[in-house]
Amino acid sequence: MTDKPKGVSNKLKYCNNCGLKLDYRIPEGDDRPRFICDACQTIHYENPKMVVGCIPVWKDRILLCRRSIEPRYGKWTIPAGFFEQKETVEAGAKRELYEEACATVEFLEPYGLYNLAFISQVYLIFQGPLKDKNFRAGHESLETRLFKEREIPWDDLAFSVVRKVLRRYFEDVLTGVFPFHMGDILPEMSY
Amino acid sequence: MTDKPKGVSNKLKYCNNCGLKLDYRIPEGDDRPRFICDACQTIHYENPKMVVGCIPVWKDRILLCRRSIEPRYGKWTIPAGFFEQKETVEAGAKRELYEEACATVEFLEPYGLYNLAFISQVYLIFQGPLKDKNFRAGHESLETRLFKEREIPWDDLAFSVVRKVLRRYFEDVLTGVFPFHMGDILPEMSY
Repeated sequence: MTDKPKGVSNKLKYCNNCGLKLDYRIPEGDDRPRFICDACQTIHYENPKMVVGCIPVWKDRILLCRRSIEPRYGKWTIPAGFFEQKETVEAGAKRELYEEACATVEFLEPYGLYNLAFISQVYLIFQGPLKDKNFRAGHESLETRLFKEREIPWDDLAFSVVRKVLRRYFEDVLTGVFPFHMGDILPEMSY
Repeated sequence: MTDKPKGVSNKLKYCNNCGLKLDYRIPEGDDRPRFICDACQTIHYENPKMVVGCIPVWKDRILLCRRSIEPRYGKWTIPAGFFEQKETVEAGAKRELYEEACATVEFLEPYGLYNLAFISQVYLIFQGPLKDKNFRAGHESLETRLFKEREIPWDDLAFSVVRKVLRRYFEDVLTGVFPFHMGDILPEMSY
């Protein structure tokens, strides 16, 4: 789970269709500037990215992963990552769970959507019961572990969105009701 | 609301950072092919796009827009469109409502998320009460109108995701409970 994709600049310079220089202006009929290729007429729209992830639950414990990659190397997180082409959001969340924790869930329920508008990202978080205790660190994790609420390493979580959704989750555990939540993450709380 | 952004090809040819030819292969440590620039090392990730929209409610009626643009010129839809950089999903849905129907809502509640995995899109639909009856066709609409359930032009809806979410909405009206739904739209039902 990273807050910024590697490599892709916010400032596009050349057309990826014909290789010529791009202009940046408001297209006819539009209301905001876009990167435009005057040679081949391609308009290069930029859109926010979705991160999909889940809270994997085993009785009164949840599964967290300790990151083996930057950013936030060594910090704990829920399994989550960038949503990929041609998959469903559920499939994406399950894929990330398997990649980062080699784990599978019985099912997933949508649990929370968090705007990180300042970096043009949306986190969609599911929750669901682990199928069994077969889990281990995937290639982006140093270790994986089940935590009771009182054991959660609150000061060593990788991202504030993880802190926010986990706080909410344990509040909902008290009532046994897990409604769909929405929230905003602001820049000053981004990590 | 369009199912495919204008201009952007699924097949990237040139690096938008340095303008040189891209290769298409699996990057080291990754598990799927990406467009890679060997000149400047940029990896061009492609990710699904989100469409944000809402069901604007006025008592026992909902507001629909008749499209003045392709695809599906002349067909009816809920106000919805591509989620833009640096906005929240709620702000995006309100922006689309204003652009297409010059209308405002008192508030929005998340209502449904629909995967259109075959075209790498996700629709996030809200519902909420209109502030007043001040609405009119925006520049992407021929007309805007309030419909009771029995008046909905089911055979003249622009997209099957609109049909699916509206069917669901009127089922929920019977119970007065509007839980968050998830669904999949398959290619054969895409229009």
